Amino acid sequence: MPNNRRIKRHSRKAGLPPGTLVHIGEKKTEHVRITLIDYNEENVQEGVVEKVEECFPFKEMPTVTWINIDGLHSIETIEKIGKHFELHPLILEDILNTGQRPKCEDYEKCLFMVLKMLRYNDEDNSVRSEQVSLVLGQNFVISFQEAVGDVFEQVRDRIRNAKGRIRKMAADYLAYTLIDSIVDNYFLILERIGEQIESMEEELIAKPSDKTVRMIHSLKRELIFLRKSVWPLRELINSLQKTESSLITDSTEPYLRDVYDHTIQVIDTIESFRDMVSGMLDIYLSSISNQMNAVMKVLTIIATIFIPLTFIAGIYGMNFKYMPELEWRWGYGLVLLVMIAIAVIMLIYFRRKKWL
Amino acid sequence: MPNNRRIKRHSRKAGLPPGTLVHIGEKKTEHVRITLIDYNEENVQEGVVEKVEECFPFKEMPTVTWINIDGLHSIETIEKIGKHFELHPLILEDILNTGQRPKCEDYEKCLFMVLKMLRYNDEDNSVRSEQVSLVLGQNFVISFQEAVGDVFEQVRDRIRNAKGRIRKMAADYLAYTLIDSIVDNYFLILERIGEQIESMEEELIAKPSDKTVRMIHSLKRELIFLRKSVWPLRELINSLQKTESSLITDSTEPYLRDVYDHTIQVIDTIESFRDMVSGMLDIYLSSISNQMNAVMKVLTIIATIFIPLTFIAGIYGMNFKYMPELEWRWGYGLVLLVMIAIAVIMLIYFRRKKWL
Amino acid sequence: MPNNRRIKRHSRKAGLPPGTLVHIGEKKTEHVRITLIDYNEENVQEGVVEKVEECFPFKEMPTVTWINIDGLHSIETIEKIGKHFELHPLILEDILNTGQRPKCEDYEKCLFMVLKMLRYNDEDNSVRSEQVSLVLGQNFVISFQEAVGDVFEQVRDRIRNAKGRIRKMAADYLAYTLIDSIVDNYFLILERIGEQIESMEEELIAKPSDKTVRMIHSLKRELIFLRKSVWPLRELINSLQKTESSLITDSTEPYLRDVYDHTIQVIDTIESFRDMVSGMLDIYLSSISNQMNAVMKVLTIIATIFIPLTFIAGIYGMNFKYMPELEWRWGYGLVLLVMIAIAVIMLIYFRRKKWL
Amino acid sequence: MPNNRRIKRHSRKAGLPPGTLVHIGEKKTEHVRITLIDYNEENVQEGVVEKVEECFPFKEMPTVTWINIDGLHSIETIEKIGKHFELHPLILEDILNTGQRPKCEDYEKCLFMVLKMLRYNDEDNSVRSEQVSLVLGQNFVISFQEAVGDVFEQVRDRIRNAKGRIRKMAADYLAYTLIDSIVDNYFLILERIGEQIESMEEELIAKPSDKTVRMIHSLKRELIFLRKSVWPLRELINSLQKTESSLITDSTEPYLRDVYDHTIQVIDTIESFRDMVSGMLDIYLSSISNQMNAVMKVLTIIATIFIPLTFIAGIYGMNFKYMPELEWRWGYGLVLLVMIAIAVIMLIYFRRKKWL
Amino acid sequence: MPNNRRIKRHSRKAGLPPGTLVHIGEKKTEHVRITLIDYNEENVQEGVVEKVEECFPFKEMPTVTWINIDGLHSIETIEKIGKHFELHPLILEDILNTGQRPKCEDYEKCLFMVLKMLRYNDEDNSVRSEQVSLVLGQNFVISFQEAVGDVFEQVRDRIRNAKGRIRKMAADYLAYTLIDSIVDNYFLILERIGEQIESMEEELIAKPSDKTVRMIHSLKRELIFLRKSVWPLRELINSLQKTESSLITDSTEPYLRDVYDHTIQVIDTIESFRDMVSGMLDIYLSSISNQMNAVMKVLTIIATIFIPLTFIAGIYGMNFKYMPELEWRWGYGLVLLVMIAIAVIMLIYFRRKKWL
Repeated sequence: MPNNRRIKRHSRKAGLPPGTLVHIGEKKTEHVRITLIDYNEENVQEGVVEKVEECFPFKEMPTVTWINIDGLHSIETIEKIGKHFELHPLILEDILNTGQRPKCEDYEKCLFMVLKMLRYNDEDNSVRSEQVSLVLGQNFVISFQEAVGDVFEQVRDRIRNAKGRIRKMAADYLAYTLIDSIVDNYFLILERIGEQIESMEEELIAKPSDKTVRMIHSLKRELIFLRKSVWPLRELINSLQKTESSLITDSTEPYLRDVYDHTIQVIDTIESFRDMVSGMLDIYLSSISNQMNAVMKVLTIIATIFIPLTFIAGIYGMNFKYMPELEWRWGYGLVLLVMIAIAVIMLIYFRRKKWL
Repeated sequence: MPNNRRIKRHSRKAGLPPGTLVHIGEKKTEHVRITLIDYNEENVQEGVVEKVEECFPFKEMPTVTWINIDGLHSIETIEKIGKHFELHPLILEDILNTGQRPKCEDYEKCLFMVLKMLRYNDEDNSVRSEQVSLVLGQNFVISFQEAVGDVFEQVRDRIRNAKGRIRKMAADYLAYTLIDSIVDNYFLILERIGEQIESMEEELIAKPSDKTVRMIHSLKRELIFLRKSVWPLRELINSLQKTESSLITDSTEPYLRDVYDHTIQVIDTIESFRDMVSGMLDIYLSSISNQMNAVMKVLTIIATIFIPLTFIAGIYGMNFKYMPELEWRWGYGLVLLVMIAIAVIMLIYFRRKKWL
Repeated sequence: MPNNRRIKRHSRKAGLPPGTLVHIGEKKTEHVRITLIDYNEENVQEGVVEKVEECFPFKEMPTVTWINIDGLHSIETIEKIGKHFELHPLILEDILNTGQRPKCEDYEKCLFMVLKMLRYNDEDNSVRSEQVSLVLGQNFVISFQEAVGDVFEQVRDRIRNAKGRIRKMAADYLAYTLIDSIVDNYFLILERIGEQIESMEEELIAKPSDKTVRMIHSLKRELIFLRKSVWPLRELINSLQKTESSLITDSTEPYLRDVYDHTIQVIDTIESFRDMVSGMLDIYLSSISNQMNAVMKVLTIIATIFIPLTFIAGIYGMNFKYMPELEWRWGYGLVLLVMIAIAVIMLIYFRRKKWL
Repeated sequence: MPNNRRIKRHSRKAGLPPGTLVHIGEKKTEHVRITLIDYNEENVQEGVVEKVEECFPFKEMPTVTWINIDGLHSIETIEKIGKHFELHPLILEDILNTGQRPKCEDYEKCLFMVLKMLRYNDEDNSVRSEQVSLVLGQNFVISFQEAVGDVFEQVRDRIRNAKGRIRKMAADYLAYTLIDSIVDNYFLILERIGEQIESMEEELIAKPSDKTVRMIHSLKRELIFLRKSVWPLRELINSLQKTESSLITDSTEPYLRDVYDHTIQVIDTIESFRDMVSGMLDIYLSSISNQMNAVMKVLTIIATIFIPLTFIAGIYGMNFKYMPELEWRWGYGLVLLVMIAIAVIMLIYFRRKKWL
Repeated sequence: MPNNRRIKRHSRKAGLPPGTLVHIGEKKTEHVRITLIDYNEENVQEGVVEKVEECFPFKEMPTVTWINIDGLHSIETIEKIGKHFELHPLILEDILNTGQRPKCEDYEKCLFMVLKMLRYNDEDNSVRSEQVSLVLGQNFVISFQEAVGDVFEQVRDRIRNAKGRIRKMAADYLAYTLIDSIVDNYFLILERIGEQIESMEEELIAKPSDKTVRMIHSLKRELIFLRKSVWPLRELINSLQKTESSLITDSTEPYLRDVYDHTIQVIDTIESFRDMVSGMLDIYLSSISNQMNAVMKVLTIIATIFIPLTFIAGIYGMNFKYMPELEWRWGYGLVLLVMIAIAVIMLIYFRRKKWL
């Protein structure tokens, strides 16, 4: 249960002074890995950094610098970065606490953003989320991830090969590109969920079972979880658009509007999925009660036809001494005829009632 | 499933740099077809254009020019237009990506709008949507459609024959007329859905079946889909009304208010339809359980009457040596009388309970 | 289905240029009837007008003039009025299209309002609606109705007999009075629906049947329809209150606030009715399942008591040669005793389970 | 049905000119009773007034005057007060029409408020409402009630004995005190309803019956009614807080905030009650279907065990001449053993299925 | 029922003048306990105070003073504090009335806040709430609690040991820290509820019973209660952030934003829990009807197979004189074969219908 996990993590910290750096969350990677990309329109420089201090000189350079940290358990590293790049202690605390809600905060010298990067787990058809924190400063972007592996590979590619306009733009455009990659990735997740819904609908019609309800239920929870990750994103991008911070340049504005549109599209799709999934429960319940109805009808028809006939047979099975019908030559034949007549009348009645 | 289709298309592009021109969507037409109408109060000129460059001189003319492109797969054509008419790269990207949400964006030199043109498919009673992008510039409107065939024929007619005031007005009035045609078309769609609802209601009362639920469900989805297309339209027209762009003249304002009213009417009707369709599910479920009730009552009445009688017949079918009743002269008659008495009492009881 | 009717009408016009005058709606009256009332504090003049041109001189007079047109199919008449009173073409279009949403629009020289006048049809317990359009100008009010017959008789009476303050006030007060009459009439409609709900509730408790659900459903639809007519009215009156038009004088303001309060009261009542009607469906469904439960219990009790007894009778009805019990002197009596014992034990068991 | 009553009353007036004084509502008291309390910090004067004119001199005095009128059917009295205290005709109309929604209106010279005073009827566990209208003027408060008897006794006491700060404050504090008394009384009503909910819950668990649903339903309606009375109160007090009228002094402001908090608490509690009551319906329905399940299981177990056994007995009850088993020495014993075996196997099967 | 308790308490006070000091709530502690902590960056002084007057000198000191009162029944003590610290009488009234809604009020000289401190009761899995009132003045914070024992122990620890930045900050930071402790504690509560939901879900799948519904219901109520405590908190912190009071310094602002985020996270989680719990009811109901379906199928299969067979046996159990089949040599064998054939056909039919 993804929800619970998040809460458990948080409670581990209850009562500590704010700004205390404690890593809250699973340790998803063994050692911290720092990569650095520095570029301007002409040059690009890329590499894995051994010691965090190697990144510091880039802060003052006019080129755009992207420092990416995979793994959050080295508090010392985070602290050094925080000190050198003059980050507010609450930023550091939020980076380490992986149970954050997506948000955007304006600390004069930098903009701090928290996002959720999603991953579809094929084994149990569930969605996993990883927290990505972005710090946008004058000429740099620092990104923090819980583990190695992300959705930014194509961004790196574009920087390396100067595809698109990324190399010509400032650091805010880089931050936008990272957000855009995360949002674009949501469409992949939704596609998978869409497939799941489709296959479940077919199953629902073909062979509804108790298992189906549980699957609908788990899908519902998946969507609740997704919604919780995406809704705040809308606000995040909105506040980026409305910010008066000088870190966001005018030329980036239409791109933010574009990613905002995508976010709304994601939200719309999630809401539609929710509507569909609730609709599926209705279908399921009605098909269950339809089935029951069909079963009941068969029982009723068989029972109501044979119960009276059996009764008649019972009558002539009695051992009374004086039962004149028993002696009749055509008694047996007559009784059989009466029985057939009763059965036929009943069948006609049922047909009229549209039970047959 | 229209929803899924949209998502699949989108994901094909995840990770590419923004502004990259890739056609996302089905290729609905074989070759791109460009038509041009140029008019002022006195003259009108119309024709199919072979090479896109032929349209370019019209940009500078004071007459109103309407360039219509059917088919989006020729990226080269789109790019040329974009270059000549100075469109922002994101506009071009949005034109090509047919999974857009209806929206209106103000790029100083032009207004960009995305709309959904709907078509009712008679074969499977479903609604298909085609994306129409409009670019409104100083003296021109460029419209992009996915395929040949649209709801604008009467607009063309009006221009040709100078019906109404279209020839006297500026380009913004032309844009309004196109939007109005699309919205008016929604009423046709709603009319068809209204008919479907009506016929389904009759069927629901006449012969509710498992199929009905599935039809209700598919209608529900159709309405979810429609709603997703129409709701954003409201915002679109609203932002057109509120825009400070000089491209929208004062004399067009009451017309925008008019089409805004129509949009709200469409939304109102969709919401009413949704209410009705949910109501239908309630009727269905209650009529199912009513039917079941009726079936159960018949079973109960037949069973409760005959079970005790059969038991009595069973008693006198036993082969005990010493059963004095069997020897009585009127034993058989008495037993039959007792049985009739029991049946009558039960029938009276059931009548009182209002089961008959 | 009131909803559908409205849509069908609208679609007839799809594609025509805006401002084209086509009467959309049923022709509810045979010929157009124009009546005129002109008054000031001292005098009042009233009459049926043969030719629409007779009304025109009143436009310039300082007295308040109320022109009422019953019947919308004479487009020529409407056009003449439009021309003389300088009405915007969209006003004329909206007057003729009887599928409008209630609204208020400010066209500098006049205020244009669309309202729905309701009528309760006793035959099929449904609510019919007629569109009333009001044009409020400097010294005149023009009202357009679909047919002869309205809720304004008492207003005319008040003008004739100088009841209340109507003769002392300007044209805006007349317009307010007409709106107030329409809203007051809604209370009569709600009263009728309230009675219907009450009688349905009694029926629901006394004898719930399949018909009841259908009646609940139709009531629900009636309320959906009513809501659609009344909700926009709130906005209408609100925008009248907030208008900066000089046509609304300060002394009318408290009266508008009063009619606004009434509208909210109508909306409140409709919402309460909706709540009640949904509640009724719940009662219905639970009483159905209660009934079913009762039926099932009877079946179960009868069946579970007699099935084992019949089995025992069956045993001693077998024709085996060596069945010692059959030879016993008191075998028959013993078996009867055993049967009675079993029945009594079962009855006690059922009583404990509270099934009896 | 409290709702209906209100509407019927209103419709009696439809069509009359606004400001016409007609008493709409039940005549709840035989003759009108006017009481007057006049006080300042030093003195207090109290008495029943025979003729309404006796109150008039107090209008000009600097002391605070509270005139209370019980009974609304003497239109003459109301008119005299209206004339002397310069009340707008719409105020008088609203006072007489007891179907008002709670509201606050600012008529420069005075503030007019309508409230609902509730009373819990112990006989049928329903809530009755009485309209209280308050007029707050420069140095006076006039209150109008439908009948003798109210929740203001403690306010009078406080004035008489100079408890709290009431004698030191202006007329607006008196008005606040009256509103506060009415709101405090709501808590008593809610307490009673809370008790009802509690006892119903116990009944629901102990012995759910058809009656319970009807009680839940009537409780639901009671809460709908309550909600309609309390929601507008929030707006009322809010507009009192925000008013720019000089009649509300600064020192009263924190008290208004206090009563506003209470109102929100009342609303919160009503909403929680609504949630609880809907929850109860769910419990009820599920316990009904649980019961049915239990009944069905017993039937199924008895029937499925005995039906095959009876069939076997039936076989050996056949009268065929050549049935070798019948002649066997241990045939009867064998058949009995087979029957016991079948019954035991079935019982084991049911236990496994957890039906036992 | 926590809700009722609150209301009962409140009604005890109805009618008293506002500002009257009456303790409304359970007396949760025997005698009032006052503790005082006074600190600045260099020193800290802590102790239990015997007489409330001992605290008074600290009011004027520049150091930050935190006075904590456990137990509200000593009205005299509260009054003395109110007098010395110049608190508005409504503050004192609100402190004593433990049925307050969380809120924040700005009384120029001080900020007054009411919060709910929650405690999870392990015995009956319910959540208890205790009211905490905070008064933030120039250099002091006064906190009022209903009983000894709170969630502030770690705050005290931090002050004593100068952990974090608390000793360097002003009184507003202390108030923030207290609020933060309360909010952090909510996560612990949610964790417990999350565990309850998880274990209930397992039970639901393993063995759904009537008890489960009641547990779901009580969980629902717990969440309604929680929601009522937390929702207003959002407003509280929001108004703290937006206040223009000089008591809140700029440096505390980011911390308030942080605790605001936590509150929203708590609200989000509560909403998700509510969604999950409603989903559980759906699962429960569908698994119940599935079970019923399974039971019915078994009954139907057994009954429909054996009823016709028993009928055939009944036929040949009749005692007619002339029944030729009875004399046949292979009559018995033939009948048995016919019976087996019927049974096999039926089984095949059921298998096709997927009932087996």
